[in-house]
Amino acid sequence: MERFFDPQSVVVVGASNTPFNLGSTICNMLKDYLHYDGNVYAVNSKGETVNGYPGYSSIPDLPQTPDLAVIIVAARHVPGIIRDCARKGIRHVVIESAGFSEGGEIGEAMQREIDAIARQNGIRMLGPNCLGTLSSRNKFCCFYGVNPSLVEMNQIFESPGSISYIIQSGGVVVLTLESLYYDLVGVNKVVSIGNKCDVDEADLIEYFQKDETEVIGIYLENIADGRKLMEAARKSRKPVLVYKVGKTKEGAQAAMSHTAGMANNDRIFDAACRQAGIIRLQSIDELHSLPKIFTEMPLLKGKRIAAFTNSGAFGGISADLLVQAGLQMVRLSPQTQEKLKKVGQVFNIKNPVDIGPAPPQTYLDIFEILLSAEEVDGLLPLLSVWQPFVIDCLLELMKICKRYEKPAAIYTPNAISKSVAIRARHRLPIFETTEQAVRALSVSQTYFASLLKRNLTGDRPLWGAGLNTDHRSTGEALS
Amino acid sequence: MERFFDPQSVVVVGASNTPFNLGSTICNMLKDYLHYDGNVYAVNSKGETVNGYPGYSSIPDLPQTPDLAVIIVAARHVPGIIRDCARKGIRHVVIESAGFSEGGEIGEAMQREIDAIARQNGIRMLGPNCLGTLSSRNKFCCFYGVNPSLVEMNQIFESPGSISYIIQSGGVVVLTLESLYYDLVGVNKVVSIGNKCDVDEADLIEYFQKDETEVIGIYLENIADGRKLMEAARKSRKPVLVYKVGKTKEGAQAAMSHTAGMANNDRIFDAACRQAGIIRLQSIDELHSLPKIFTEMPLLKGKRIAAFTNSGAFGGISADLLVQAGLQMVRLSPQTQEKLKKVGQVFNIKNPVDIGPAPPQTYLDIFEILLSAEEVDGLLPLLSVWQPFVIDCLLELMKICKRYEKPAAIYTPNAISKSVAIRARHRLPIFETTEQAVRALSVSQTYFASLLKRNLTGDRPLWGAGLNTDHRSTGEALS
Repeated sequence: MERFFDPQSVVVVGASNTPFNLGSTICNMLKDYLHYDGNVYAVNSKGETVNGYPGYSSIPDLPQTPDLAVIIVAARHVPGIIRDCARKGIRHVVIESAGFSEGGEIGEAMQREIDAIARQNGIRMLGPNCLGTLSSRNKFCCFYGVNPSLVEMNQIFESPGSISYIIQSGGVVVLTLESLYYDLVGVNKVVSIGNKCDVDEADLIEYFQKDETEVIGIYLENIADGRKLMEAARKSRKPVLVYKVGKTKEGAQAAMSHTAGMANNDRIFDAACRQAGIIRLQSIDELHSLPKIFTEMPLLKGKRIAAFTNSGAFGGISADLLVQAGLQMVRLSPQTQEKLKKVGQVFNIKNPVDIGPAPPQTYLDIFEILLSAEEVDGLLPLLSVWQPFVIDCLLELMKICKRYEKPAAIYTPNAISKSVAIRARHRLPIFETTEQAVRALSVSQTYFASLLKRNLTGDRPLWGAGLNTDHRSTGEALS
Repeated sequence: MERFFDPQSVVVVGASNTPFNLGSTICNMLKDYLHYDGNVYAVNSKGETVNGYPGYSSIPDLPQTPDLAVIIVAARHVPGIIRDCARKGIRHVVIESAGFSEGGEIGEAMQREIDAIARQNGIRMLGPNCLGTLSSRNKFCCFYGVNPSLVEMNQIFESPGSISYIIQSGGVVVLTLESLYYDLVGVNKVVSIGNKCDVDEADLIEYFQKDETEVIGIYLENIADGRKLMEAARKSRKPVLVYKVGKTKEGAQAAMSHTAGMANNDRIFDAACRQAGIIRLQSIDELHSLPKIFTEMPLLKGKRIAAFTNSGAFGGISADLLVQAGLQMVRLSPQTQEKLKKVGQVFNIKNPVDIGPAPPQTYLDIFEILLSAEEVDGLLPLLSVWQPFVIDCLLELMKICKRYEKPAAIYTPNAISKSVAIRARHRLPIFETTEQAVRALSVSQTYFASLLKRNLTGDRPLWGAGLNTDHRSTGEALS
């Protein structure tokens, strides 16, 4: 599987100098942007050189057997090309072309032909109808048509991270990577699986067990082999987050027109996810917004939450949300309440703890009292950044959370653009709404419970992350 | 009621030159920032002048009877001050001080005393425990402790808009106004009602029927007079959007510690809202994000929606969401499908309509075909801005929507910061997620149905807005 993400040599079949040629965009990215140091070849009808990469008119003519073939030509040419790949000894192929199982009977017949050749020759295939792979650490990417000069793309390769994505749609890849730029956790690998005629999400979950991945994010339009997926997820020692289209009959039909899957029964899928410890996402946005609760914070080991706000209204709002999410507003012990009373300036010493204008030490004292309290499993700080010192207090909170191995899901009741800027500049795991923060706590607790059920808590710290992967040392993501 | 929002003279009781004095922040805003042209007086124990406004040691000493008294002193002094107001003939009072019904038995006793004096003297009161009022058109604001130099505050007064807010919490006022700066619709009036011992949300709904308000946004922690609220909402010819805390027992308790309300039965409230045509909000964010579907788009008069995307995955996602929201994925007629086929470059001519890379005219043709189709009530465009021309197409879509009197809830599958920038610069009603866009359609249709049920469709256009209020002509909100 490694060769899909870290090939030492690549052939781009279909790259040419014709205007608007998509294959050439892959050559351009490898050469001009990624400065990829393996051999790259172009195959096109004229055998012409593409952006300095030597061109050949057919695969058998190549001077070596490349680790990976990336195919981006009209569907009708693909079966012949796969046959050529087999003859040349190529064992890893990405088919980016569309027009197979999602393209009617002719497409389906071609798919069967390709499958047979691949099976006979031990070829592993990604796609068809996909964008291919990206590996931030290996500085490799075979996505077509992407503008690599986008600042978001820069960020991916400059600050490798710990989320790996398996995504069955190019559009969702682009949106998620773009959104992640404004969020906290970096990308490790991305793979767009398209119609997944061979390599599927289960193979990739298994593969991501062994690399720098800390969280696996998945977007699916259909499931071909449910048993295989659930088995891979059940064994996963890393959180598996899945958004699946097709909750309704209408959604399933629409997804079929896109990547040719079978409609799956959503309720069965839901029950299977719970069994396998899969976290089912409620929106596309959660693909980028939720992982930080795993990578930046300890897991939530119980359901008892203390809310702490400097903006009274959010206490009530969060109490509603916590209870609706299946968590509990903890009843603070008399001792804890006594300690809070001594801090002074606390309007409400019962949960939600509510303060007015107060100096930094008040914030720090309350963090310490709540997180050290035996009855508290996790914290929901809803703290408006009305003075810059609140940011310093939140940075300190990160350390207190680590000390007590309890998580805090931070929300700053400020306009979204402000909160996003604070998150990026100070590398604080700030969620974008109260709803999202509560959801993160709920997901953390559900995941912890599933680790227990699956007997997977023994040999790794009960802590979402190693907290030492390189993307965290990069400081500011945004200016 | 007008005097609360447009007083010709004001006394700020409790404004002094003591450091951190809150009353002086009101004087500073009126003088230095708003250049308020009515008379302003300060009342404090020394009778000292505050920022050039003449000071007096008691209300009876004032040289005139001000239209409005704003009181911000310790709670124990408030009953005496109300008595002084009565003696001086002041009939409109904002009590910003806290410490009444939310402050235990002594507070409750003081509240009863104040109520009695006010009743005997025909005084209308706002608060206590509130921020007061803001009127963008009158350039009046008596909020304490607000930093008026914030760009968000500038925007409010420079570009008056059409939403009026009734909010039972200072923190939510600040968050909503700050968020609105990054959204499309401007503010008309804002009133923070706090413990609402006299003027309540029902009085204000009634008042907002007669001014420039187009949409009424309300945040409530408790409801004192449910019948009165529902009656006012039922008669409202403007959409009434309500977020209410206290869906759960825990939420209701937390809210009580904040503004001293009774816990209300949420299910009864929910049923009453449906009867009265109140739109119940699902999150605080909806206070600023939803109104644009009313002010910028025609109402949705049926449930049949066509989705149109240039990023295949979003077709399936939106189909799920539309059906879950009680709307329908319309089955396009053979004629409509035929027209779409003729456009060319359409992957899927059934709903969701899905296109690949295509020129502007393709977008415009599809907008026209779908919105002119008899079977289509509204449009869900999920269009990634992969080229700047997509923005021009969306601007054109606004006109097509008006022509056919059908709404479109636009979502651009780009990172949130990009979408927000496009929204502000081009004044396009772009929603922040697919979920939010679908929710906007659902809310528009629910509101239309409630207008029919309440027999309120006769004498106003079936169109959310006059589309001629001044904030729309301001062009760019953000650079």
